[in-house]
Amino acid sequence: MTHLLAVGGSDAGIAAALRARELDPTTDVTVVLADEFPNFSICGIPYWVSGDVATEASLAHRTRADLEAAGMTVRSSTWASAVDVDRRRLTVTGAAGEEQISYDELLIGTGAEPVRPAGVPFGESGIHLLHSMTDAEQVVAALELLPAGSRVAVVGAGYIGLEMTEGLVARGFETTLIQRGPEVLSTLDPELGSLVTAEVRRHGAAVLTGSTVTGIAPTGGGQWRVATRSTSGDAEGTFALVVVCVGVHPVTDLAVAAGARLGQAGAIVVDESMRTGVPHVWAAGDCVVTHHRLLGTTWLPLGTTAHKQGRVAAENMLGGSKVFAGSVGTQVVKVFDLVAARTGLRQHETGPLEVSPLTRVTVADDHKRYYPGAVPLTISVTGDQSTGRLLGAQIVGQRSAEISKRIDTFATALHAELTVDDVIDLDLSYTPPLGSPWDAVQVAAQGWERAAAAANQAAVNQAAVIG
Amino acid sequence: MTHLLAVGGSDAGIAAALRARELDPTTDVTVVLADEFPNFSICGIPYWVSGDVATEASLAHRTRADLEAAGMTVRSSTWASAVDVDRRRLTVTGAAGEEQISYDELLIGTGAEPVRPAGVPFGESGIHLLHSMTDAEQVVAALELLPAGSRVAVVGAGYIGLEMTEGLVARGFETTLIQRGPEVLSTLDPELGSLVTAEVRRHGAAVLTGSTVTGIAPTGGGQWRVATRSTSGDAEGTFALVVVCVGVHPVTDLAVAAGARLGQAGAIVVDESMRTGVPHVWAAGDCVVTHHRLLGTTWLPLGTTAHKQGRVAAENMLGGSKVFAGSVGTQVVKVFDLVAARTGLRQHETGPLEVSPLTRVTVADDHKRYYPGAVPLTISVTGDQSTGRLLGAQIVGQRSAEISKRIDTFATALHAELTVDDVIDLDLSYTPPLGSPWDAVQVAAQGWERAAAAANQAAVNQAAVIG
Repeated sequence: MTHLLAVGGSDAGIAAALRARELDPTTDVTVVLADEFPNFSICGIPYWVSGDVATEASLAHRTRADLEAAGMTVRSSTWASAVDVDRRRLTVTGAAGEEQISYDELLIGTGAEPVRPAGVPFGESGIHLLHSMTDAEQVVAALELLPAGSRVAVVGAGYIGLEMTEGLVARGFETTLIQRGPEVLSTLDPELGSLVTAEVRRHGAAVLTGSTVTGIAPTGGGQWRVATRSTSGDAEGTFALVVVCVGVHPVTDLAVAAGARLGQAGAIVVDESMRTGVPHVWAAGDCVVTHHRLLGTTWLPLGTTAHKQGRVAAENMLGGSKVFAGSVGTQVVKVFDLVAARTGLRQHETGPLEVSPLTRVTVADDHKRYYPGAVPLTISVTGDQSTGRLLGAQIVGQRSAEISKRIDTFATALHAELTVDDVIDLDLSYTPPLGSPWDAVQVAAQGWERAAAAANQAAVNQAAVIG
Repeated sequence: MTHLLAVGGSDAGIAAALRARELDPTTDVTVVLADEFPNFSICGIPYWVSGDVATEASLAHRTRADLEAAGMTVRSSTWASAVDVDRRRLTVTGAAGEEQISYDELLIGTGAEPVRPAGVPFGESGIHLLHSMTDAEQVVAALELLPAGSRVAVVGAGYIGLEMTEGLVARGFETTLIQRGPEVLSTLDPELGSLVTAEVRRHGAAVLTGSTVTGIAPTGGGQWRVATRSTSGDAEGTFALVVVCVGVHPVTDLAVAAGARLGQAGAIVVDESMRTGVPHVWAAGDCVVTHHRLLGTTWLPLGTTAHKQGRVAAENMLGGSKVFAGSVGTQVVKVFDLVAARTGLRQHETGPLEVSPLTRVTVADDHKRYYPGAVPLTISVTGDQSTGRLLGAQIVGQRSAEISKRIDTFATALHAELTVDDVIDLDLSYTPPLGSPWDAVQVAAQGWERAAAAANQAAVNQAAVIG
């Protein structure tokens, strides 16, 4: 009987534990986690803060009882501090003090932790991070004490920052979103990001773009003065609560102590089998480098990827030969009544590839205009002019417009290394209430092809002039 | 200057005309059509009948002025009757009598016409087909004269029959849907079709399944008695209006007269370039056989396919070398608050292939259950147990659940010849309001894999017993 030990009770660790039990129900599986929240949906935190999700417990993908019924031992509030690689023993500290847990195969799924910008007085009342369930509990408790209409600030307009802004507006707080980039959601091209910025403003939140926080200081009375700097000068605002969501970095101490190497962005180096290279030590999830089907190796922590990597690791820990097929960087976020999604690479991200990237933005209706409710989608397609290969896509539009699954069509095409022309050839579904004979994604692909043909013709003409 | 002549003003003919003008704006393009409705959305007819679309004119994808502005000559109410292949001349009859039109390349896009079951008194007031705009005008005019609450019948519960039933219920008619198969929408497995049958009944229409119409006779007073037979015996009902939608067959007279051969289902034989084999005569759309990426050659008339074939034909008529990439049979329909979609093959349709098909139905939520509005999707996956290759998928669920685009993920996977396991590996988008870390399509793929593993294990056990 194999004893599989996972450190980390989030996506990677739990996915691995479940998969191991599924593949071989005789496997002895233990999951060690530092807090009391095994298998909680971290992505759901903003919806608990907003009130869309009524109770904290709802955020559990599975209850502890579910996990135990699946045959795993869950050891919460247990901190893993060292690995004895030769003897295959993990040192942990829990309620009963320090002890050793033996393993046959060890999975490190320690995840990521939020970036804490220097100078921000974390730990003070009213200054919050939002990454763990404990962070979420603190924010929810603090918001309960604030009168509606209180001024609150969110620093960082990525996925979590935008979702938090929406939640705070929904709860009636006067909300300011502070973003370093020219538009919110800097994972999109500014042309598309500007649509999201406008949506946030349309719903009443103030958005300070191009703004860097230069200081956060108490003003007394439980308020904080946040100073910002932008090209238009310095500004400041006073807020009862400040949430800082400016990204994450991988948690690697345990892996490093075990002898693992670090790679891109300081994440743990693993091969596509999730091996660290240290005997019987595997790693998966936000703490490891990410194999990307276009870029090679990068670091792109996402829950979807962590689930897949955990599943791959489990199969291999039991003697299998599964490889992680690789990310294509697919992401989606709902922001008020808009959805914004992307997959693959943006023009400037293709740098490491030997390609001639071209990006074209097309606006196309989500379904036939004659049927009620049609809305425009803004779709950006990036492809390689030399080979026609699809490199990436971005879509922004109304929530009703099935954007999340439309980006999945591009994501599937990227996985299969299709060309932009292949996208036009796809046999996609059509009925007037839900699409068009050429779906919007194909209209965008056609737009790209026209732009590529024009660019090629221009190059020919230029060559002729030079010739 | 090439003169490209298209017979047929619907999807194939207009797509070809537009593409020719796009590729070479010097092309002289003429489109000849028998009625006055160039480039109308036949798929939109039920929504005009229902009132969702306010005016008939709204159903035009482009107006005649748009088409002429794109550089084509549109000759409506013009009937093409013969082709002189040697002299490249088409004989047409229009308002000015018979004449000859010369061409360099001729595209036949004569489409399909509705099946007219023997014994149905078509032409009589109250008995309708629903395929052309003229049919639609007649139905709309007839319905205007009927008091709300009148009893009406729809014969045939395919896409058009279901959409018409919804439209008639929406307009307040007491509607009966008569279907030969065990459930409506016989293009789905009955397990999924039953969900659609229930939805139609839930909205107040009567559904007679397993029922064949044995007679339609006048009762006087403008009413029709419709007799049906099923395993539970004979029945009859009296209706003020009967719409018959029991399929279509290809219109091929002109092509046959030109010397083209007929193939599957009596459709015009074309190669993947849309050549008929008759010099300078091409064909596309509902009138031609369909190249299918799994089945080889079949006949599957769909607007999406007609658009693609017309585009391919145009490119080749201008000297190109484009091939139609092939259908995978993707279809979707909205029926009241449900959406039903399919792509690829159902278990029994894999007969012509050398595969060991296995089909597994899985129910999975469209998005995380903790976020409001989650609904279950019923997803059927068919794959080849021998190779793991994906062969087909069917999905039924609530309209909100982005089913149309989820089937597109399967359709893209089919196009790229992915395995079911590859679907699990896809990097699909996730945010709690719109999906799950494993999207529902991947949960269904995992369900299929478990079933396939169990079936393989059972086969091994059986072999051991025999051995």
